[in-house]
Amino acid sequence: MATPSAVSFSVRKVTPTNTLEEKNFLAVEEPLEIRIATGSAQADSPVSISMRTPGHDEELAIGFLFTEGLIRDRRDVNAVETQENSTRVVLRPDLVPDIKKLDRNFYTTSSCGVCGKASLDAVSTKSAFGPAENTFTVSSTVLNSLQEKLSGHQKIFNMTGGLHASALFNKDGSLLLVREDVGRHNALDKVIGASLMNQQLPLSDSILLLSGRISFELVQKACMAGIPFIAAIGAPSSLAVTLAEENNVTLVGFLRDNRYTIYSGVQRIA
Amino acid sequence: MATPSAVSFSVRKVTPTNTLEEKNFLAVEEPLEIRIATGSAQADSPVSISMRTPGHDEELAIGFLFTEGLIRDRRDVNAVETQENSTRVVLRPDLVPDIKKLDRNFYTTSSCGVCGKASLDAVSTKSAFGPAENTFTVSSTVLNSLQEKLSGHQKIFNMTGGLHASALFNKDGSLLLVREDVGRHNALDKVIGASLMNQQLPLSDSILLLSGRISFELVQKACMAGIPFIAAIGAPSSLAVTLAEENNVTLVGFLRDNRYTIYSGVQRIA
Repeated sequence: MATPSAVSFSVRKVTPTNTLEEKNFLAVEEPLEIRIATGSAQADSPVSISMRTPGHDEELAIGFLFTEGLIRDRRDVNAVETQENSTRVVLRPDLVPDIKKLDRNFYTTSSCGVCGKASLDAVSTKSAFGPAENTFTVSSTVLNSLQEKLSGHQKIFNMTGGLHASALFNKDGSLLLVREDVGRHNALDKVIGASLMNQQLPLSDSILLLSGRISFELVQKACMAGIPFIAAIGAPSSLAVTLAEENNVTLVGFLRDNRYTIYSGVQRIA
Repeated sequence: MATPSAVSFSVRKVTPTNTLEEKNFLAVEEPLEIRIATGSAQADSPVSISMRTPGHDEELAIGFLFTEGLIRDRRDVNAVETQENSTRVVLRPDLVPDIKKLDRNFYTTSSCGVCGKASLDAVSTKSAFGPAENTFTVSSTVLNSLQEKLSGHQKIFNMTGGLHASALFNKDGSLLLVREDVGRHNALDKVIGASLMNQQLPLSDSILLLSGRISFELVQKACMAGIPFIAAIGAPSSLAVTLAEENNVTLVGFLRDNRYTIYSGVQRIA
């Protein structure tokens, strides 16, 4: 029995003229524990516990391990299994990832020097794919069509109004994959995890569409997966733009109502 | 020299009829390291590094330490100082907080049992203030006025379109405090940190307004600060509603266009 992604809940809706009791759907938020099993003994280690919307938990776990630099390839994964709110990823026995790497997100040492360029290095995981190449362009017509195509596939958002989405399109604007989650980083990890399991990395021919704002963390995950083109309905942060520029990634924000703003990588806009 | 909260950046805006080069403001996102100094030797320990929008860094650090349960009171803090992207909180010498508590957000042990009720306990920090009491009611007129009052004070959002806000109001709808950040949890930690430093905790007479969606983490922080009434422009998650119910907190979502939806604590709506 999979845990549902949305649940029904009794609410009161108050409008200027009346109050209605009705059933609404809530986006489910529950903790997921990610564990890895390593070595010939397949000893278990917990690597993270975080809130997510149930559904595609294996993709989320795989995508998280990949974007954190703990695995590189589908061949690093021997098996994935989920029980309730715990997903266990069995790695190939000779791979012993450095779990301490994860600490960079949470703790730092006094030698870190959290300022300017040093900080970017401290919080970045390096992509195996390097800066993006300029292999395709996207027309304004295609760009302006993306949001409407996505909204038709935001199943849980359309029920609940409470979820982020990440979607992959090809350069002609065909929708390839959509994932949703209460956490925007989770939605992107699910997309990347699915792509890794389908041996589609690097995603060097894809456009990534984000339903919200663009943070540093999202650009970093996209770079890890080799995505050269990011478009979003919302605004990017300063560091998101910096990282996109450094990796030759096209960054487009405020994509709505047939308008958009280009922050970097203008050469990929036809 | 304080780091700015927004920076100017050259962009291209594409509309159906033309392309304009112009200067836009980006919300600044940079890492902040939080360190605590403890004991008579005031030895430094790093406790967290996370992305935030510069500004009110001391409030953020204090609020984070409070909502994580590491400090309880203004008297626990002897001094706070920020240099670049590092904030150091000097605790009273006889307070030795259990930094390992922070691990609950990131790692768990095999005995955690991440499912159902157990998970909520595992990820919750207990509030010293207990469930909220029913000491006031709020009228629809006041509720419907909150968003407009907030938007006049979202200074960085109005420049950048890229920030979350947390605001405190009293029950009559007077705006008390607004804080903004690229991270919604940071905006709330800043509000709570400021309130702690002003010795205003528990915030049992306040309404909290959130500019976006309501996650479990935000309700938990509000409970830690003794806030009995949360209203948000966006939708709550399932676990946000559960936690609000458990703590007798009023939760109102989709507060826009003179409409709203009540999820819990209807007794506080007049």
